[in-house]
Amino acid sequence: MVGKVYLVGAGPGDPELITIKGLKLLREADVVVYDRLIPKELLDLCKSDTEKIYVGKNIGDYVIQNEINELLVKKAIENKKVVRLKGGDPYVLGRGEEECLYVISKGIECEVVPGITSAIAVPAYAGIPVTSRIYSSSGFTVISGTQSEDKVIDEAYIPQKGTLVILMGIRKIEELTNILRKVRDEKEPVAVIENGTTNKQRVFIGELKDLVTIVKQNNVTSPAIIVIGEVVKFREYLWKIK
Amino acid sequence: MVGKVYLVGAGPGDPELITIKGLKLLREADVVVYDRLIPKELLDLCKSDTEKIYVGKNIGDYVIQNEINELLVKKAIENKKVVRLKGGDPYVLGRGEEECLYVISKGIECEVVPGITSAIAVPAYAGIPVTSRIYSSSGFTVISGTQSEDKVIDEAYIPQKGTLVILMGIRKIEELTNILRKVRDEKEPVAVIENGTTNKQRVFIGELKDLVTIVKQNNVTSPAIIVIGEVVKFREYLWKIK
Repeated sequence: MVGKVYLVGAGPGDPELITIKGLKLLREADVVVYDRLIPKELLDLCKSDTEKIYVGKNIGDYVIQNEINELLVKKAIENKKVVRLKGGDPYVLGRGEEECLYVISKGIECEVVPGITSAIAVPAYAGIPVTSRIYSSSGFTVISGTQSEDKVIDEAYIPQKGTLVILMGIRKIEELTNILRKVRDEKEPVAVIENGTTNKQRVFIGELKDLVTIVKQNNVTSPAIIVIGEVVKFREYLWKIK
Repeated sequence: MVGKVYLVGAGPGDPELITIKGLKLLREADVVVYDRLIPKELLDLCKSDTEKIYVGKNIGDYVIQNEINELLVKKAIENKKVVRLKGGDPYVLGRGEEECLYVISKGIECEVVPGITSAIAVPAYAGIPVTSRIYSSSGFTVISGTQSEDKVIDEAYIPQKGTLVILMGIRKIEELTNILRKVRDEKEPVAVIENGTTNKQRVFIGELKDLVTIVKQNNVTSPAIIVIGEVVKFREYLWKIK
């Protein structure tokens, strides 16, 4: 007998934004392997004898990623029901696909349970819809501020139109802003949202040309999400929703 | 006393992909105003005396959109707890922001509860992660195949790199494919996923140059999602997850 691994998205911060399916699996788990950016309240919902293993890692930490992969396989081989709990959605810039691929390559079943991605829900909680006909925004793009090997994102990922949502953009904000200004108008509205969907949320609004100043002056730290586009203007009307 | 409106995302099809928060609100609702593309099983979870109002509409039907807005306000004024249940996420190409704006403009509280968007979860259930370092895909773009006034999407919304996910692209597949080929390589892998996350799911794989043929030969109908990018190659390894 061999166990199974479930890659479960924990959502963006508000613990009530996990799915029914994710919660059910969490309650039945023998082992939970969890990240830095999950709502910690969720861990209290496990069985009393569930083994909870923290594997929070720093950006670009390859050694630890390999250890996580091995850990998931090891626990499954011990016939455990393993929940790998990841912030947001496992397949949105979270390397969930690498974990899934590794587990399956070892002959072990792996199922992905999507989560609410911060890329959409964090702006929503701050009163900013990622799309809207009112501002002719028929689409949105989600990018990581940095690519693999810690390079800044390539401008080929950035379309001229549509809402742009940037995760992991704070650490290299100067370089990132330079790239953004090559493709987008410097007068486009921007929002910077720190600790979105939680009671520590802070939101700053401005224009693309002021992005570096906004981040530096307010000492914005990770986790923070940057939104660029006309839809930022909705905040004035819709922020009351939270 | 005036009620409140909750815009709740019902998720992509699998009824277990609604959030805890969404389910809780659905169970307490006095009125549920629901769309065509929600998992119908969710309606059985309401109280026995909940009023359930179907407002499924065809694309571009402005008259009905105004009627929905009015309906939400009317029920809230009657001091009802109103759940507006929408497929996927209310703010991803779903006009949720228009409904929220209207309700708030009438002095009524409106809260948005994000849902799992089909743009991410439908590919995931078909074994396709929207991002991956393995294929240098540090981002993804979600667009609607058609914009307002039924025009095909503008190529300025389409970046040269990164995964591209297209909702509502089937009806104008020829025109859409012509636009796509202006920006993307015709040999890029594509997936067409019909009725994703449900037991009626069908998936077709090919290259961008064959997209029209894939859709026509297999008689693909809405709801269907198109994914373009190297990440489609994951399906061969990860489809076993479902």
